[in-house]
Amino acid sequence: MFYHASKLQYRVRVEKPNPVFAKMLQQAIGGVEGEIRVAMQYFFQAMGARGPAKYRDLLMATATEELSHIEFLCHAVALNLEGAPTTMQEEAAKDPVVGAILSGMDPRHVLSSGLSAMPVNSNGVPFDMSHIYATGNIGADMMANVTAEAGGRTLAARLYTMTNDPGMKDMLSFLIARDTMHQEQWLAVIEELGGVKAALPIPNSVPQSHEATEFSYVFLNTSLDKDAPQGRWSSGPSLDGRGTFTVAQAEAHGQEPSLGKARPDSAAQKEQM
Amino acid sequence: MFYHASKLQYRVRVEKPNPVFAKMLQQAIGGVEGEIRVAMQYFFQAMGARGPAKYRDLLMATATEELSHIEFLCHAVALNLEGAPTTMQEEAAKDPVVGAILSGMDPRHVLSSGLSAMPVNSNGVPFDMSHIYATGNIGADMMANVTAEAGGRTLAARLYTMTNDPGMKDMLSFLIARDTMHQEQWLAVIEELGGVKAALPIPNSVPQSHEATEFSYVFLNTSLDKDAPQGRWSSGPSLDGRGTFTVAQAEAHGQEPSLGKARPDSAAQKEQM
Amino acid sequence: MFYHASKLQYRVRVEKPNPVFAKMLQQAIGGVEGEIRVAMQYFFQAMGARGPAKYRDLLMATATEELSHIEFLCHAVALNLEGAPTTMQEEAAKDPVVGAILSGMDPRHVLSSGLSAMPVNSNGVPFDMSHIYATGNIGADMMANVTAEAGGRTLAARLYTMTNDPGMKDMLSFLIARDTMHQEQWLAVIEELGGVKAALPIPNSVPQSHEATEFSYVFLNTSLDKDAPQGRWSSGPSLDGRGTFTVAQAEAHGQEPSLGKARPDSAAQKEQM
Amino acid sequence: MFYHASKLQYRVRVEKPNPVFAKMLQQAIGGVEGEIRVAMQYFFQAMGARGPAKYRDLLMATATEELSHIEFLCHAVALNLEGAPTTMQEEAAKDPVVGAILSGMDPRHVLSSGLSAMPVNSNGVPFDMSHIYATGNIGADMMANVTAEAGGRTLAARLYTMTNDPGMKDMLSFLIARDTMHQEQWLAVIEELGGVKAALPIPNSVPQSHEATEFSYVFLNTSLDKDAPQGRWSSGPSLDGRGTFTVAQAEAHGQEPSLGKARPDSAAQKEQM
Amino acid sequence: MFYHASKLQYRVRVEKPNPVFAKMLQQAIGGVEGEIRVAMQYFFQAMGARGPAKYRDLLMATATEELSHIEFLCHAVALNLEGAPTTMQEEAAKDPVVGAILSGMDPRHVLSSGLSAMPVNSNGVPFDMSHIYATGNIGADMMANVTAEAGGRTLAARLYTMTNDPGMKDMLSFLIARDTMHQEQWLAVIEELGGVKAALPIPNSVPQSHEATEFSYVFLNTSLDKDAPQGRWSSGPSLDGRGTFTVAQAEAHGQEPSLGKARPDSAAQKEQM
Amino acid sequence: MFYHASKLQYRVRVEKPNPVFAKMLQQAIGGVEGEIRVAMQYFFQAMGARGPAKYRDLLMATATEELSHIEFLCHAVALNLEGAPTTMQEEAAKDPVVGAILSGMDPRHVLSSGLSAMPVNSNGVPFDMSHIYATGNIGADMMANVTAEAGGRTLAARLYTMTNDPGMKDMLSFLIARDTMHQEQWLAVIEELGGVKAALPIPNSVPQSHEATEFSYVFLNTSLDKDAPQGRWSSGPSLDGRGTFTVAQAEAHGQEPSLGKARPDSAAQKEQM
Repeated sequence: MFYHASKLQYRVRVEKPNPVFAKMLQQAIGGVEGEIRVAMQYFFQAMGARGPAKYRDLLMATATEELSHIEFLCHAVALNLEGAPTTMQEEAAKDPVVGAILSGMDPRHVLSSGLSAMPVNSNGVPFDMSHIYATGNIGADMMANVTAEAGGRTLAARLYTMTNDPGMKDMLSFLIARDTMHQEQWLAVIEELGGVKAALPIPNSVPQSHEATEFSYVFLNTSLDKDAPQGRWSSGPSLDGRGTFTVAQAEAHGQEPSLGKARPDSAAQKEQM
Repeated sequence: MFYHASKLQYRVRVEKPNPVFAKMLQQAIGGVEGEIRVAMQYFFQAMGARGPAKYRDLLMATATEELSHIEFLCHAVALNLEGAPTTMQEEAAKDPVVGAILSGMDPRHVLSSGLSAMPVNSNGVPFDMSHIYATGNIGADMMANVTAEAGGRTLAARLYTMTNDPGMKDMLSFLIARDTMHQEQWLAVIEELGGVKAALPIPNSVPQSHEATEFSYVFLNTSLDKDAPQGRWSSGPSLDGRGTFTVAQAEAHGQEPSLGKARPDSAAQKEQM
Repeated sequence: MFYHASKLQYRVRVEKPNPVFAKMLQQAIGGVEGEIRVAMQYFFQAMGARGPAKYRDLLMATATEELSHIEFLCHAVALNLEGAPTTMQEEAAKDPVVGAILSGMDPRHVLSSGLSAMPVNSNGVPFDMSHIYATGNIGADMMANVTAEAGGRTLAARLYTMTNDPGMKDMLSFLIARDTMHQEQWLAVIEELGGVKAALPIPNSVPQSHEATEFSYVFLNTSLDKDAPQGRWSSGPSLDGRGTFTVAQAEAHGQEPSLGKARPDSAAQKEQM
Repeated sequence: MFYHASKLQYRVRVEKPNPVFAKMLQQAIGGVEGEIRVAMQYFFQAMGARGPAKYRDLLMATATEELSHIEFLCHAVALNLEGAPTTMQEEAAKDPVVGAILSGMDPRHVLSSGLSAMPVNSNGVPFDMSHIYATGNIGADMMANVTAEAGGRTLAARLYTMTNDPGMKDMLSFLIARDTMHQEQWLAVIEELGGVKAALPIPNSVPQSHEATEFSYVFLNTSLDKDAPQGRWSSGPSLDGRGTFTVAQAEAHGQEPSLGKARPDSAAQKEQM
Repeated sequence: MFYHASKLQYRVRVEKPNPVFAKMLQQAIGGVEGEIRVAMQYFFQAMGARGPAKYRDLLMATATEELSHIEFLCHAVALNLEGAPTTMQEEAAKDPVVGAILSGMDPRHVLSSGLSAMPVNSNGVPFDMSHIYATGNIGADMMANVTAEAGGRTLAARLYTMTNDPGMKDMLSFLIARDTMHQEQWLAVIEELGGVKAALPIPNSVPQSHEATEFSYVFLNTSLDKDAPQGRWSSGPSLDGRGTFTVAQAEAHGQEPSLGKARPDSAAQKEQM
Repeated sequence: MFYHASKLQYRVRVEKPNPVFAKMLQQAIGGVEGEIRVAMQYFFQAMGARGPAKYRDLLMATATEELSHIEFLCHAVALNLEGAPTTMQEEAAKDPVVGAILSGMDPRHVLSSGLSAMPVNSNGVPFDMSHIYATGNIGADMMANVTAEAGGRTLAARLYTMTNDPGMKDMLSFLIARDTMHQEQWLAVIEELGGVKAALPIPNSVPQSHEATEFSYVFLNTSLDKDAPQGRWSSGPSLDGRGTFTVAQAEAHGQEPSLGKARPDSAAQKEQM
């Protein structure tokens, strides 16, 4: 079960409130690269974790940390909205800076939330939980987590570049660091389980007999006017050590799909029957 | 630009049509683990690919292949719907097999699509494009692609277990194999770029000065009653070789978030002002 | 402004309540082929209608009728839920008919709405207003309306086939008839405006100079192994009378899309810069 | 910031796993009446709470409790999925109980999550964060919270009726009790602020001069064939003590909305210009 | 069934069209605080209303009024879009007022709707019907309605502050007044049913035996470093008169959730089995 | 199956990159009027096409072309983002042009995609596949396709007006032309099948006995204060030649919908039982 302490995990200072940056910070809260996503993803993975218990604990511990990230980011949004314009003064509209702020901020930060954060991204699109990837397969889940942290760190780096506020840069440098650690820790689980090569192909419990292995290590080139791109994937042993990479031109192995006539009771047009 | 040939990439045979399995196959078309997702994801990544051109070509070639996967899966859905019940006969409802089919199939396979596939998942929820992850960072993109293929292979393996139809098992064995190759090829790109360790932390172009590095390699334990889980992530050199893993109990470094009084013009309650 | 009278536009009788059919009827309420959609679509088109006022009146009159369709369909759902199982008795689960009902009904008809209709489709997916097509162009809007009514009539015809209940068949026969009229009336507007040929291509106010007319009447065949399908579209005068249909093999007129290197501050991987 | 302890807030026992009930329990996790919603709603309200600090603390304390509710419900889903069918045996399909389970369970509980909970409702529709109501007005927020708890308690009561499993009934009796307390506590905040009458109309900080008060206490009857329903709302002093309830027939006070002709450059049809 | 009259319920004047304010008005049409929501919510509640008929009539009468609110708001949006820029003149972009308008307006007001209203909010996100709360429990429904009107009145008050246009202020003053009445009337229903205390806890038909009453009136404090906030909820008789409020520190009453090993056929990693 | 060639179907030149126009172009990629929609719609229609095979081929050929349209539009977005601001310089914010760009561009073009296209519309709302209309009825499908192309051509015409960039105008003139052809070709299919009149009412396979034909050709006027609008739809032979248009005032043919009391176990309020 969960508990809460009253102080933020990291300090939040905003020297010069900026409602347009408040909108951009929303991406780190309610974007697909954001903190609601990782908090909920690690939580649901933990709730479905079967096998060694320590991975469940690792997931839950980090899910809990991510909740604290949402918390300080929300405070950062609210502080950036201090002093935001709540009225369209005609004079104001003529001041390019004020006009740009009115045009560039999220109007719902005034109209809907009363100058505080919302669980939406920087376009105002609410986060939806279809982005919680939890498969019951620890390999797939760990890869999903590295992906989430890589996306999150990329976003934090771009927000760091975007702002000039020293307080915001300080807070974002903490996020960048934590995303570093979280990338590392999820890959470290895979290392523990024998490394990427032993994990592959995910799931590693699929019997070979379920796989048309003649198609498992061949790059199929679907380009009509370019040779297959050459690289680590086009020759040499496969990464999992069970095959050899080759290259082939993609070709059809199947039939022309034909469905015949429509059934009389299917409400198609008569001409289809 | 794209071209089309009339035959399917792989053969589709259904010995005994099963409308409930048709519903399940929809997960491989319009689910987050499905083929629309990977086709569109690789396509958009290709369109934003900067740097060495061969990765763009690799992405586009595989995006194109995935379109062909959607195609044969759609045909498989239609073939499984041959003979599906379009009426609720009272007698039929008393036959447990027919009753179970009527209850277990997707009603929109009759009502909306006229016995063919739809771009929805096995719950009938339409695929939405927020699941297309394309960051402009090749490391983040490749990880997202391994994740997508791991999820896809997990799904294909479960569908293989679920069905008894030899034709469907044959088709799914091809999908499992292609997901193997695609997992491998995206990781192979990372190998080419120096391996996972050189890629980490993604993005690897963030200056160290933007990062609060004292927090970059420490596992923060938020559990109140359990020690930090021990593993590859809790001690020893970090995976990127730039730090040493340690463990610490999570603690607050920030202030209590307090927003003070509401502005008079903010439509809060008077008691908040 | 709107008013309401207490009786339904059409009678609703259910001889034998059927919770699974209640679920199917939801498609006609909250599906993309359903009545919420047309009610709102005609309403928003009316609110944006510029030009001859009678088309706005036509739209609003029919929007209002569609609201009455939602109303009697909702009553039909509630009547089909009379007596629905609200508990999973062990004995019941062994009765195939009851088991099939429990499995086949929408659980939210018990859990969320308390045995009444919801604004969702037959998969329980809520209707969303992105399906309201209102372009400000009366030609595009009328075509969208014919489409909506054709989809709606197809759905009503399938529901008619699906049910054995005489009361439900009676109600659906009314819906089928009204969808007939509404298809006719929207096309009649186009007839009034000179017919389909004068309306085409929509919008008919685009200056020819804005159009690369050498591509306006040629069917581009993207198939690699089949000739272009022959028909009314492949030769002879175009429907709008301004050109002649021809056929050509699709080919590339553009460049290879290349984006070059990533900017140093874009948080791409170093290898892309 | 947040912390976690390893035990669940309440015990979860499942005597006889039931995959169909697992699907129904999803409504309490990812439905609009569910626990993700209240956890996130109270959290975001806390982050935007201005005025007396104790209300922020109350919100955050209960947000934290709701996270623990999600946790034990997720465990309940997983336990109900123990032994769920992962294959469609032909024999099984003939057994009405197994057939009903295969038809009635959420296929994604096998295909996507590997037999564990997902952040979706009982139709498999993912929760989306547009349902987090946080207005910055404590009166509006408290009413939203009573609403959420009333909906949640209604759902829990229906789930209690639906199941026969003593362990599930025990767990749900705890949820029902907590929803009782939470309803009470949010209304208690309003009592503290002077009671419902002082809170009304929300927001109570709107100057009377912003309101067309001649329309503030009159019930407008839009029915063409029924008198206005009589009750507490139709006569006597208004609840806020500032007016007297009356009844009037609804009538138009505005103009006929006419937009005139379309602009030449607006891509309307020529006939509209 | 529904009827329509040609004049608006309230007059709509726009002295100085403002496309940015048109975007903000969209929140009152297609936002969660908007008029589509209440129109549809009252309608669906009416369709599921069981018990005294006058509440159904009350709901339907007001649903009908809300349709008229959508109507005049849509006209207000269109009037605010008169003269909106449909082209990006280079000179214009240099004029800060025009530049701010182009940047701040909803581009789909030009591109998609041809200068008229859409069923979307001020971020352009379409309204979705998952926000229609109709539970079949009149207490829960009435609370949901007060909530909706409180949110709506808060929004209208903010829009009133935002605009300088006298015509818009006049229209919004009518909306504010109607939201006052509607808040009052829904609470008046609860008064009729014995008042808030008799209604609580909702649903009031749940037998006490279904509730773990030892948890029904205790505030559980999940804070690690703050005492439970004190107030009306922490001591004294409960609002429903059936208990006494107390305070306790939250603690775990359940087990550690452990799922054991993964099934061999579940497509988990081998290491989980 | 699908193949790809490396050059774009049409040339893309951007003389002066404009990030605000990049946002607007997104409507043509991920909007409901956009190219993802038509590509996927024609594809799914092809996969469900029953009856004459040439229509399936026509659909697939054009689906394939639309994929190429997405491709060059994505390149156009990326080229318009060259040089977009990635930082909020204080000086820059004072420059009205830069300020307007920062306020008017899609922030996710920097934060999420790294200066390239996304599968979203011009409000940043992701495309969702519920917009793929494929009914199994070739008449309904063809009408849906004309609608889609009419909407698409309207959008392209508006984008053409909006931009001053000659390269963009050139590209859009190609899109306008192709939308002309595609409108024509889908209507040409209907001509081949006997023309609009023979196709109507869609589906034309519904037996007359399923239709309450006394309501099939009558315009029902729901207006209380206006006569039915007169036109082609109000008198004379119906378009399908099977009836005669008439006009009638809408009236109720049904009962007052009354649901009686709530069931004791339905978790309604006691007062409803």
